Amino acid sequence: MSSGTNKNITIIGAGLVGSLLSIYLARRGYKVSVYERRGDMRRERMSAGRSINLALSDRGLLALEKMGLAEAIREISIPMHGRFIHHLDGTTAFQPYGKEGQYINSVSRGTLNTKLMDLAEEAGVSIYFNEKLDKIDWQQERISFENTAGQSIPPSQTGILFAADGAFSAARLQHQLQHDQFNYSQYYIDCGYKELTIPPTAEGEFAMEKNALHIWPRKDYMLIALPNLDKSFTCTLFFPFKGEASFEKLKSRDQVKTFFEKTFPDAVPLMPDYCDEFFANPTSSLVTVKCYPWIRDDRFALIGDAAHAIVPFFGQGMNCGFEDCRVLDELIDKHQHNWTAILKEYQELRKPDADAIADLAINNFTEMREKTADPVFLFQKKIEAKLHEKYPEEWIPAYSQVTFSPHIRYSEALRRGQAQEAIMQQVMRWPGIEQHWESDETLSSIIQLIR
Amino acid sequence: MSSGTNKNITIIGAGLVGSLLSIYLARRGYKVSVYERRGDMRRERMSAGRSINLALSDRGLLALEKMGLAEAIREISIPMHGRFIHHLDGTTAFQPYGKEGQYINSVSRGTLNTKLMDLAEEAGVSIYFNEKLDKIDWQQERISFENTAGQSIPPSQTGILFAADGAFSAARLQHQLQHDQFNYSQYYIDCGYKELTIPPTAEGEFAMEKNALHIWPRKDYMLIALPNLDKSFTCTLFFPFKGEASFEKLKSRDQVKTFFEKTFPDAVPLMPDYCDEFFANPTSSLVTVKCYPWIRDDRFALIGDAAHAIVPFFGQGMNCGFEDCRVLDELIDKHQHNWTAILKEYQELRKPDADAIADLAINNFTEMREKTADPVFLFQKKIEAKLHEKYPEEWIPAYSQVTFSPHIRYSEALRRGQAQEAIMQQVMRWPGIEQHWESDETLSSIIQLIR
Repeated sequence: MSSGTNKNITIIGAGLVGSLLSIYLARRGYKVSVYERRGDMRRERMSAGRSINLALSDRGLLALEKMGLAEAIREISIPMHGRFIHHLDGTTAFQPYGKEGQYINSVSRGTLNTKLMDLAEEAGVSIYFNEKLDKIDWQQERISFENTAGQSIPPSQTGILFAADGAFSAARLQHQLQHDQFNYSQYYIDCGYKELTIPPTAEGEFAMEKNALHIWPRKDYMLIALPNLDKSFTCTLFFPFKGEASFEKLKSRDQVKTFFEKTFPDAVPLMPDYCDEFFANPTSSLVTVKCYPWIRDDRFALIGDAAHAIVPFFGQGMNCGFEDCRVLDELIDKHQHNWTAILKEYQELRKPDADAIADLAINNFTEMREKTADPVFLFQKKIEAKLHEKYPEEWIPAYSQVTFSPHIRYSEALRRGQAQEAIMQQVMRWPGIEQHWESDETLSSIIQLIR
Repeated sequence: MSSGTNKNITIIGAGLVGSLLSIYLARRGYKVSVYERRGDMRRERMSAGRSINLALSDRGLLALEKMGLAEAIREISIPMHGRFIHHLDGTTAFQPYGKEGQYINSVSRGTLNTKLMDLAEEAGVSIYFNEKLDKIDWQQERISFENTAGQSIPPSQTGILFAADGAFSAARLQHQLQHDQFNYSQYYIDCGYKELTIPPTAEGEFAMEKNALHIWPRKDYMLIALPNLDKSFTCTLFFPFKGEASFEKLKSRDQVKTFFEKTFPDAVPLMPDYCDEFFANPTSSLVTVKCYPWIRDDRFALIGDAAHAIVPFFGQGMNCGFEDCRVLDELIDKHQHNWTAILKEYQELRKPDADAIADLAINNFTEMREKTADPVFLFQKKIEAKLHEKYPEEWIPAYSQVTFSPHIRYSEALRRGQAQEAIMQQVMRWPGIEQHWESDETLSSIIQLIR
């Protein structure tokens, strides 16, 4: 790899993206300092107020692989081969995510972050904790922090500054306030989420199928569950804040109990503490943040959620942030450490992809909570899977493009997905499609439409 | 009027909306304090960095009329009966805004604001200047300011707090940072603006037709001019920041001169100092701000540009803010000083209207810079004017609904305008429409379509 000429780089935020970015840049020869608002999670137990497990898919793995980290991370992950649907009548169904051998990975945010911080420090990165951003002076390339542990620290020179401090980025706020013509939007969906737990069984085993993402689709809302290494599942209820069935209507234990027993009858026996947890755990919001520009000249860039926070329904937030790091690294090669050129192309390349995955993620909420229980939709997916099997390059289901095709850009996946969906809307109205969907003639007629 | 029981009201911002709002509330019996970041414009000469004249139309006048101020304001206004178009070939054309006797009013921002502040103080309002908002504590209903003139002031109790501090509202930023689930967007268009001057003639007269809004429509950009009481015109160039013809391309006096002489040949002889002004005056940005919620319980509301900044192309920014005040005042009556109910209905009523005028304003840029020079568009407007003459209630041109029909809500004007436009798109393709557009049969056929 070419050398970073020992130039300074400052990263705000030692979360997943900040930590991985620091490894990429340290290995390029830069002197990297990371400032984290929270304490060191490796020493203190803390609740980050965010989902405790995540779905790592091929884009994230590709970015890890480039740093030789994929195997280490796979070891702390549990493969999920498809959606395990829990219907209201007690029946269940398994819907594979892709082809045989394709899967996503349930991984603990804390374990992954800890691992990445260890690897960053091994790579020579300095991480400073309890450092709350105070002010950025772009002219002077200076940055000041307030040390919440009471230590006094002087302002430091930033070098190149990356803001990897998440959806509510303090660095982005400085950028917003000091940059003329900064386009910005934050938009909350009407649903929030709350985490609950399915512990291991008395025998110390997983209480449900381990290698799946479990969904209880209930149209306007849903419960999901992802497996953890300790054989528990973390469940997340995505639920409206207001309305007939909503957080505001579940005020007493009795109301919670009645609702859960009626709505998630097969989950209730597996969640001994759900009533306590319901009142003890926070109700969190779901925001989409879009903004532009992401950069300032050769010296500042937003990255990860700070640039593009999305809702979690495609499981792509972390994957998209990791992809930011990989793309940026490729641009360091391409532009030979010329940061004006690197950052300019970084935002031009990534902005349309970040916008695309933001929209795809919003749309996928409908798919998960409603369509996974819809026989017509499932039939359509079956036809698409067959098309993919027969024409693996020409027809790739939208989900697979996003999840298992890390070299297809999100913006391209959105465009191709929309084109395919328009065709499938026609196909589903073809007379007799239910009978002859598997025939060569039918599949060939469909594929003609995309060519 | 019913009594405000001497309750405290704090208004942040003594601009046009803050000042008018303070009059409304003081006359309701509230004890009103206004805090303004700038100095007192009645004592100091200052450039606010904003357009120096504005178009006051019937919505704004209605809000002023309710306070008995319309006549006083008309006296400092110049009627503009239509658009005076300056084509590239030197020809001109006059396009009336509405029916005979309908006009909008050119008024100086400074003169109007000064007048409103005087009237506010007469009504018992206290205005404090050089008070820069520091922090709002909603729990404790406390607010602190930094006095930029060096005086020290303690935090004060807010009572009911209104943020009328404009598009870049500091109070809204506090709200954004402290309110979970606050939806927010700021979006800049690709054009900025710069003000230039057409002074009075050597004889001390207006250099062009006085009672009109002058437009030099040039497709991707335009120059406009509004008359002032001192017989000058303030011109505004709305122009792309980047691209072939743009601010970034006009870097030298020669470039400016060449461009203006080629593009605005009949304006150049009237603007002796435009080259100096071009480099001396700021290039300003144009932003649309949308957000929600606007309120907190019974104690806080955004109003005017702080709630809904829009681009200036419909001349409705101030009018919309004044309408906010009028609607709020009607709700004080309706809900008998119950502020929980007042503020709730205020935001529910005004949010869709603010969104509508924001979109209408963006669309009107295209109309002004491009369509006012398009014969087909002008023919369509002629048919619509005739329809309005014959069916005055059933067909009101969109511009007239917004400008001359203050009792039609913006959201209703947008909806009706879109329906009419869809019909006119059909009508313009009717064979022979050029010949028989004035016939009773044609007009009657069109009106059937809207019924």
